[in-house]
Amino acid sequence: MIMKKFINNPNDLTIELLEGYTLAYKDVVKLESKKIVVRTNPKSSDKVAIVSMGGAGHEPAISGFVGEGMLDASVVGDIFAAPGAPKVLEALRMFKRDAGILLVVLNHAGDVMSANMAMQMAEREGINVKMLLTHEDISAGLDTPEADRRGLGGCIPLYKVAGAASEQGKSLEEVAEIAERFNGQMATLAVAMTGATHPQNGGAISVLPDDEMEIGMGQHGEAGGGRSKILSADETAEKMILPLITDTEAKSGDNVMLIINGTGATTHMEMNIIFRKANNVLESKGINVSAGKIGELLTVQEMGGFQMILCKLDADHKDLIKAPANAPYWVTR
Amino acid sequence: MIMKKFINNPNDLTIELLEGYTLAYKDVVKLESKKIVVRTNPKSSDKVAIVSMGGAGHEPAISGFVGEGMLDASVVGDIFAAPGAPKVLEALRMFKRDAGILLVVLNHAGDVMSANMAMQMAEREGINVKMLLTHEDISAGLDTPEADRRGLGGCIPLYKVAGAASEQGKSLEEVAEIAERFNGQMATLAVAMTGATHPQNGGAISVLPDDEMEIGMGQHGEAGGGRSKILSADETAEKMILPLITDTEAKSGDNVMLIINGTGATTHMEMNIIFRKANNVLESKGINVSAGKIGELLTVQEMGGFQMILCKLDADHKDLIKAPANAPYWVTR
Repeated sequence: MIMKKFINNPNDLTIELLEGYTLAYKDVVKLESKKIVVRTNPKSSDKVAIVSMGGAGHEPAISGFVGEGMLDASVVGDIFAAPGAPKVLEALRMFKRDAGILLVVLNHAGDVMSANMAMQMAEREGINVKMLLTHEDISAGLDTPEADRRGLGGCIPLYKVAGAASEQGKSLEEVAEIAERFNGQMATLAVAMTGATHPQNGGAISVLPDDEMEIGMGQHGEAGGGRSKILSADETAEKMILPLITDTEAKSGDNVMLIINGTGATTHMEMNIIFRKANNVLESKGINVSAGKIGELLTVQEMGGFQMILCKLDADHKDLIKAPANAPYWVTR
Repeated sequence: MIMKKFINNPNDLTIELLEGYTLAYKDVVKLESKKIVVRTNPKSSDKVAIVSMGGAGHEPAISGFVGEGMLDASVVGDIFAAPGAPKVLEALRMFKRDAGILLVVLNHAGDVMSANMAMQMAEREGINVKMLLTHEDISAGLDTPEADRRGLGGCIPLYKVAGAASEQGKSLEEVAEIAERFNGQMATLAVAMTGATHPQNGGAISVLPDDEMEIGMGQHGEAGGGRSKILSADETAEKMILPLITDTEAKSGDNVMLIINGTGATTHMEMNIIFRKANNVLESKGINVSAGKIGELLTVQEMGGFQMILCKLDADHKDLIKAPANAPYWVTR
């Protein structure tokens, strides 16, 4: 079977993509060990280290956000597969320090299992590490327990906030508190319009009929429950932003960050049009969109669709989200 | 016919996408007049203004690069259509100043016609403006006259160089000379793997059989002459970087910037793998890849494929490419 993808041996995808990425941005990132991406020139080991982890195939996430003011390291698994516990432990050992480590984990079964095992082993070795679990997908309904919500692209603005707090010299307790507060005030909803191909086996990640879309689809094609005929951009944006507002409890006078994260084939043109409507719904309710971002942050191969991420910003978060950062895919001057 | 795109009325695409874009990045850009994007807070009118122009549908280009250290304004046409001469003249009037204006135009018939007309009218009005034409597509062969080469994504690093030079207070003559020198030392080659849909009429921009790709395809689906069976990433990268090296005359000891510009559906995973091989071919020849970039800069809707852009950097360009910039889609700290 021929795949319409620019690849070599499917078994080498992860290592080759990491090599290419770290060559392109060698001033900022490097491969420290196979599948662990770190900063090329870390400024200090006095600060809290921010480490995250996840499967490959979602580029530029997660490694695209390693850099000053964001992550200190990213532990990468194979395509759509969590890294193993030994690899996570290797990264935690690498960043063992008095200031401690915040390990950010997206709520997916494999990632949580590896992270929990690595945490146990790290604690036995006297490594000072706290774990934060993101679980902001609201597709299963607003009353779903947090443990049953997936972690989607909301991890990325959370890296920004946690990274900026750690860069300011805050303690692990302070960084974890600020990041957990952010975690509780953000929500994400995804929509898919066209499917994607698994780059190792050529199989379809999801299949959608020519006239249908699906709100709520997860980032590996997991069912989302919101299949419908194709809606207009404005109808889609409204249908997604309203439950996000409800979930985050954003009210008139609040500040929010609104992110449209493309999952692959959906154009910037479309994402701009979606942003416009979601922004206007927010502003019509008196909610101030004080920060915005449109682009591919966490993708699902060439899937057509996007994730809409809404983050309520309190005073701390509003400053931290605009603080300097220098990761290849998130630079703030 | 139902298109698999998140849009509203196809006639409103351009204005809605510009509204969405300028709302998302309102700290940096604003719509000054319908379809002219300018900086929200220009620092000075003493500097040379850098203005560019082109059809919509290629987002984030061209308006994504308006900001400090890059463009002062972008004049936007309808989907895949050059803006009219009156609109270009309107922008030139807006930026009339003693320091002058550099108008960067990509070599496509419609853009050149509008630009030439606007230049004539502007000169009659005493506006101090120089025009620079990019023509770096090598798909028609290395011996093709410059007038027959299309302008592709190489305009974007050129905006960076020209914008940084103008920000440093250089004169119009100096900025134009530095930018023309850059223009003569860069080359681009595109490849397409899957087609795209025109978002206004739903027609196919290009059609490629399931087992074929095409090196050289233009950014509106123009034929490129390099159709073949699908090659591996490494074979594709090598087949593209070699003529780019020949065209730019990059030699051992030279510094270059290498950009992989995704045209739509092609994943960051694939672009990273392509970058790796092209980088390694360059380095094997002693050419120093001193700057890199991977991402969607100038797209062709959801077309699968990418443009490989190679820019030889002399000492001026090497500094200017790393100078501070703050456009929504190109930030340098």
